[in-house]
Amino acid sequence: MRLVNLSAGPSALPLPVLQRLKDGVLEYDNSSVGIFELGHRTKLFEKLLEETKVKIKTLLKISDDFEVLFCTGGATQQFSMIPLNVGVPLNVSKSKDLPAGYIVSGHWARLATDEAIKFRKVEILATSEDANYSRLPHYSSDRDDLSYIHFTSNNTIFGTQFQKEPEVSSLVPLICDASSDIFSRPIDSAKYSLIYAGAQKNLGTAGVTIVITRKSILDDNSDLPVSMNYQTYIKSKSNFNTPPVSTIVSVYEILRWIEEEGGVAEMEKRSHLRSKEVYQALDEVDAFIPFAEKSSRSNMNITFTGQNKEIEAKFINFAYKSGFMGIEGHRMVGGLRASFYNAISLEDASSFAQCIRDFSKIV
Amino acid sequence: MRLVNLSAGPSALPLPVLQRLKDGVLEYDNSSVGIFELGHRTKLFEKLLEETKVKIKTLLKISDDFEVLFCTGGATQQFSMIPLNVGVPLNVSKSKDLPAGYIVSGHWARLATDEAIKFRKVEILATSEDANYSRLPHYSSDRDDLSYIHFTSNNTIFGTQFQKEPEVSSLVPLICDASSDIFSRPIDSAKYSLIYAGAQKNLGTAGVTIVITRKSILDDNSDLPVSMNYQTYIKSKSNFNTPPVSTIVSVYEILRWIEEEGGVAEMEKRSHLRSKEVYQALDEVDAFIPFAEKSSRSNMNITFTGQNKEIEAKFINFAYKSGFMGIEGHRMVGGLRASFYNAISLEDASSFAQCIRDFSKIV
Repeated sequence: MRLVNLSAGPSALPLPVLQRLKDGVLEYDNSSVGIFELGHRTKLFEKLLEETKVKIKTLLKISDDFEVLFCTGGATQQFSMIPLNVGVPLNVSKSKDLPAGYIVSGHWARLATDEAIKFRKVEILATSEDANYSRLPHYSSDRDDLSYIHFTSNNTIFGTQFQKEPEVSSLVPLICDASSDIFSRPIDSAKYSLIYAGAQKNLGTAGVTIVITRKSILDDNSDLPVSMNYQTYIKSKSNFNTPPVSTIVSVYEILRWIEEEGGVAEMEKRSHLRSKEVYQALDEVDAFIPFAEKSSRSNMNITFTGQNKEIEAKFINFAYKSGFMGIEGHRMVGGLRASFYNAISLEDASSFAQCIRDFSKIV
Repeated sequence: MRLVNLSAGPSALPLPVLQRLKDGVLEYDNSSVGIFELGHRTKLFEKLLEETKVKIKTLLKISDDFEVLFCTGGATQQFSMIPLNVGVPLNVSKSKDLPAGYIVSGHWARLATDEAIKFRKVEILATSEDANYSRLPHYSSDRDDLSYIHFTSNNTIFGTQFQKEPEVSSLVPLICDASSDIFSRPIDSAKYSLIYAGAQKNLGTAGVTIVITRKSILDDNSDLPVSMNYQTYIKSKSNFNTPPVSTIVSVYEILRWIEEEGGVAEMEKRSHLRSKEVYQALDEVDAFIPFAEKSSRSNMNITFTGQNKEIEAKFINFAYKSGFMGIEGHRMVGGLRASFYNAISLEDASSFAQCIRDFSKIV
């Protein structure tokens, strides 16, 4: 029996999308073959790949200054590709050796920083490590002596989320790991130079990473491994070797669904309503303590702890019996975490809030 | 309507596997979630990942000296990872700078060679480029002054296949790109040090690459990008970040099916029967000219040309009407190519042979 899947990713997909994928396993879109068998050089797939790009650009209002690329290796591979590929902005010619600035708001931001240190000079601009990442670090500066600035918009593990991008000099390319909140809200894409996201949360199934990048910020270094060079993806339209076809089909179907539901503005509205309900319940009851500071709270991942470990274990069990799964905290931090990506309905969020209240009465 | 899919990959999956995948889209194996939603830290997936490794090792009789890894980025990423990760064998201490030997039997072997040249000294040991790769190059030597030897067991584009691995010194690690014939026959794994294969032919859907490697041949260079370092995959059991879960599920289901059908010896038997039928028809008729030299012929990809381009176009159309698709040659070489991976039945191969004969009578 299907349960409401509140795990942090890979996570729930909307039922209409699953139905289309299911229908497509034996034959997808009159292609005579199924999704898992679809060739990457077929007209159908080449068209779908282009349409997926167009949908991404249209939904997020991305200008034609950007390329949309489909990479593999998750966000982790981007942690390496970014420092290896992003050049020094032409309009900041002070030095080839300008540091890349990193805002460290959580575990993944830290890993991105550590990886960049392997390949170029790095400066940590702000960190909330001392607060165990329970709040967002603050950065606002017109410094232009940086080759780029990297931040993570939503911290899946700690449950914090930037509601607005950091204020940075317009001369410095802003780069964002949006793996866990892309397509949950509109973005002001003009402020960004590169946005990347693993698909396995709001955007599809695990196995593909979307990279939206200004071509102008990229070097062209042919000494890089072929699959680590953004130019490979640009030149081949992300089809230089066999890409993860069925995973890209799932992204396409998710984007279709987001369009049909009203786009990212609607996704944002729902996301606020869902998280408001759940935070309200958590703030009301005594059994649980929300982890993230109020001003830093994420609309995607809601982190909290029980008064003790026993209560946490009891609640996991109670929630499971009420039809919810996947609420164990990340193995690094423990506690509890309920994730509300696009596929989770308002009704399910309300029921989960009620589940918190019901539990607090009997514990 | 489903057609018999003779394309070179991504390619046909067996119907019983498709049925299991289809059944699993809404809920896979009582997990309460579907294949596309399955978490990489769930007990079910961790167990499935381990069982997939065990099945690979059991089916191919791989000893415990080897690790089985699940990478992304296709064979292309392996073209870089191999020269970046394989060390110099300890028992050949002549020089840190021993060249890596490449046997160039086709387009992909050439790309593997070009990529390796970026990262270390390379020597081309044999090539059949002068014959437009219509035959296999010959290499047999007890040279031990090489850091490793790389060859491609089956050449998907040109339709040639090594029926036996090249004879090399036991002191030199032998590395094989088996992307298009892995699991189509038994292998003498003791002769190999590393075997890799994109899944999208005999082994599943596109999006994961299997690497079977002796741990002893690998360096541990922490300066490499995380996702380019085999040690990352070894230490994390291929689960350091979100792997392509649904693709790995498809590999698992294919391996189950291969077991149920009788293992790789049975796959080899079928593969010989299929290709024999089709080559026989091609050799009989006047309309077509087989591309590969007889002694180099592949059991996986059967390449041929028509007496002229018009005949080729007519045959593609004729075959389509007879229920076969995907027989256009690779865009680099043109002509025709029919691929017979594990999922194609003997009956379908016989019908295709008949289709060749029928066509030759009317053309």
